Amino acid sequence: MSSKLFAVVAGAGSGTGRAVALRFAKAYPVVLLARKPGSYQDTVSEINQAGGRAVGISTDVTDGESIGLAFDSIKKELPDFKLAAAVYNVASGYLIKPFLELKPEDLDDSLSGSARGLFNFAQKTITLLLDAVPESKYPPTLLITGATSSLRGSAKFGTLAAGMFARRALAQSLAREFHPQGVHIAHSIIDGIIDIPRTAGHTANGGVEDSKLKPEGIAESYWYLHTQPRSTFTQELDLRPYVEKF
Amino acid sequence: MSSKLFAVVAGAGSGTGRAVALRFAKAYPVVLLARKPGSYQDTVSEINQAGGRAVGISTDVTDGESIGLAFDSIKKELPDFKLAAAVYNVASGYLIKPFLELKPEDLDDSLSGSARGLFNFAQKTITLLLDAVPESKYPPTLLITGATSSLRGSAKFGTLAAGMFARRALAQSLAREFHPQGVHIAHSIIDGIIDIPRTAGHTANGGVEDSKLKPEGIAESYWYLHTQPRSTFTQELDLRPYVEKF
Amino acid sequence: MSSKLFAVVAGAGSGTGRAVALRFAKAYPVVLLARKPGSYQDTVSEINQAGGRAVGISTDVTDGESIGLAFDSIKKELPDFKLAAAVYNVASGYLIKPFLELKPEDLDDSLSGSARGLFNFAQKTITLLLDAVPESKYPPTLLITGATSSLRGSAKFGTLAAGMFARRALAQSLAREFHPQGVHIAHSIIDGIIDIPRTAGHTANGGVEDSKLKPEGIAESYWYLHTQPRSTFTQELDLRPYVEKF
Amino acid sequence: MSSKLFAVVAGAGSGTGRAVALRFAKAYPVVLLARKPGSYQDTVSEINQAGGRAVGISTDVTDGESIGLAFDSIKKELPDFKLAAAVYNVASGYLIKPFLELKPEDLDDSLSGSARGLFNFAQKTITLLLDAVPESKYPPTLLITGATSSLRGSAKFGTLAAGMFARRALAQSLAREFHPQGVHIAHSIIDGIIDIPRTAGHTANGGVEDSKLKPEGIAESYWYLHTQPRSTFTQELDLRPYVEKF
Repeated sequence: MSSKLFAVVAGAGSGTGRAVALRFAKAYPVVLLARKPGSYQDTVSEINQAGGRAVGISTDVTDGESIGLAFDSIKKELPDFKLAAAVYNVASGYLIKPFLELKPEDLDDSLSGSARGLFNFAQKTITLLLDAVPESKYPPTLLITGATSSLRGSAKFGTLAAGMFARRALAQSLAREFHPQGVHIAHSIIDGIIDIPRTAGHTANGGVEDSKLKPEGIAESYWYLHTQPRSTFTQELDLRPYVEKF
Repeated sequence: MSSKLFAVVAGAGSGTGRAVALRFAKAYPVVLLARKPGSYQDTVSEINQAGGRAVGISTDVTDGESIGLAFDSIKKELPDFKLAAAVYNVASGYLIKPFLELKPEDLDDSLSGSARGLFNFAQKTITLLLDAVPESKYPPTLLITGATSSLRGSAKFGTLAAGMFARRALAQSLAREFHPQGVHIAHSIIDGIIDIPRTAGHTANGGVEDSKLKPEGIAESYWYLHTQPRSTFTQELDLRPYVEKF
Repeated sequence: MSSKLFAVVAGAGSGTGRAVALRFAKAYPVVLLARKPGSYQDTVSEINQAGGRAVGISTDVTDGESIGLAFDSIKKELPDFKLAAAVYNVASGYLIKPFLELKPEDLDDSLSGSARGLFNFAQKTITLLLDAVPESKYPPTLLITGATSSLRGSAKFGTLAAGMFARRALAQSLAREFHPQGVHIAHSIIDGIIDIPRTAGHTANGGVEDSKLKPEGIAESYWYLHTQPRSTFTQELDLRPYVEKF
Repeated sequence: MSSKLFAVVAGAGSGTGRAVALRFAKAYPVVLLARKPGSYQDTVSEINQAGGRAVGISTDVTDGESIGLAFDSIKKELPDFKLAAAVYNVASGYLIKPFLELKPEDLDDSLSGSARGLFNFAQKTITLLLDAVPESKYPPTLLITGATSSLRGSAKFGTLAAGMFARRALAQSLAREFHPQGVHIAHSIIDGIIDIPRTAGHTANGGVEDSKLKPEGIAESYWYLHTQPRSTFTQELDLRPYVEKF
């Protein structure tokens, strides 16, 4: 078995993306993708200073050319490495608005980040993951972040739900196509508010302790999914705080 | 109650669209929308010759400007009419292909017909349906055609499923927003092959009689949904031939 | 085609059961089943006085012997009639209680009315429905009443949900077995409070008009399902008031 | 934090039950429950000889009195221990048969093992799990084994599905009631054939390697679920071999 494996995280700038990068960096060199360097620089530094290996690349995954350049860079940075794990954690843009006030661009923004970006990322990574099947300790894995809105369309959240339903459809279709080829594709329904600096003001669930999802807990779940043997693949699970209503 | 009500069917060129137009024409003047006149001309003639009233308009519902012009024409054609029922029956373009052979445009084609077109059509029609609430005998209704792929992403059908999941998310979100305002929004899962000239060669389910969905049966279902009183709205139902595996 | 067809409604004492009996009595002689004569007598009289034909039989559908006797009586009352439609509308007993305060009998009560009763009723009626396939105008139909709890297990509603999930599992399994044999089996998710004298005190959804399900609307839906041709069977639909949160 | 914690596995005689017992025995003394001593003796010996601690108790979990005696025995065997994890892995009896050939007892057998046994087991264990909340390293956990039939009623599998749907309803209801109290309740959909001696003759999925679920993989998943922190609880996941059609 080759020890030359790496992981790539798209949407590395968010709380979940950062935590997943840190978790996978314990095992692999990690490539962090985000639109702006400011989103990944601190995490890249933290990993490298701790003795791991991390590379940050600025890219817009919804843009075919941009993501093409990003994967060219990856090939240069890690020329002999195969891809063990890819994480799609890109948040889509969306507005919470009465439907009749929305513009077509609002739907496009959601579909773009939720579905088009995953489409591009999956095309780039699945080719690499298939190539790693014979050599990876764990079945090569594509992990996809979902949300409450992946399962439920709500008033004023229609464009968000449209994008997240579409993302889930892709995740499920890819699992059905690539599981038999040895690439594991899992979709996680993140149901609740994530505990990050930006959400400090949200007092979810009465504000009791642990009432928001810890990014580290999500990251541990992603790592567990990655380590599942091919005889027992999970395609979908949910994650929510113990006090979350559902 | 005003007797001046009309219905509009987008995607009127298909077997289902034609049958729905014929069924609703028994009660209302009907506007048929399709990209090409050849798709609706025969049905328009048939309705008008039988003593009903039908108007055909060429439009691309995925194009905001085009659909805007179509609804301008509708206003001129039926100046004093209010909208009792709108049907979104547009088929999305999609390819059945291994995922790695698809191009980003293939995903866009599916999202465009399945979600963007519905978004445009819903924005145009819901405004009109809301306006008809006080006057319509039956609660004004937006009926949306779904498919097996609305609930299930399959290998090689990923782009189709992405679009149809997104369409269902919109349908559900719109129902949650507009039911309380008196506009009924229902989504029908059409599960099976529709019995139209184009599918004559498909021997579904062993080729036994009635093994494909009759467009008239679907149309009758849409009419029933339209007539539901607001105390008992259906948001989703499935329709399939008795011999269809599911 | 024989005109000698009849319908049978189990759980005829409730608001829905009574309304369904009245609706089907417009087309068929109707047998009303309930545990106590007081539950069906008024409806039977009403139908007979209006020129229809109705028979009431006291039975406990959860008891194999009792339901056997009931169907013996039906055969004597309507010796040359075939069964066009059967409706299972029996409410299960259940308690809304913290789980640790429940007794095993509480679970049994729910399973009994929700699943065991349907099992008994389906065994009796499907045999008769199959026999009517060649002669019934509409495909012979078994209609089954579900609820919000058919799809969702809630805190303190665990025993109710256990029974209603089990009922839905039977409905789905029976549909998959008997649809290809020409018997239509549909399950309706009734989501909301039904507008009957017993619920007069409930001010659902702010108490606005039509905020509860009208039994007549449910009955009309059951009649529509019964009339679906075999090329377009619905297996499941939902019904809820326009203002109901979902 | 107390180190005096234990685990209990009901249905310890199956491949999954045995594997779960072995996995949890790495961390806790384990009590194995099965109807017959022959079902757990080997596993109990194996754990004890390896330096762990295991106790086997014969009980019928569907019988309230029998399970009461079993938990009395547990209290005597492990007087100062608190319950960290409980696993309900009892298989229900069921027959694959045309519906009209089934007897009411066949439904009862399925409901009994699937729902009544879980009800009894949950009442005994949740009380103990709540008591362990302040002291357990990981949130005390009740893990419940589901199957393909938990989500889908199939022709000839109606009684199995009725029981497994009911089990899932209980699992979901318990999660909604007890998660906020700190007890984690998860349900795993095991979708495929489990690789145990009894299934050696089944050539699932073309008989390729790893085409059945390894009990050890399922056990590892259960262990992972047990270790989830309360900020990120999974309520449901699926597990299937990479080549399984779904």
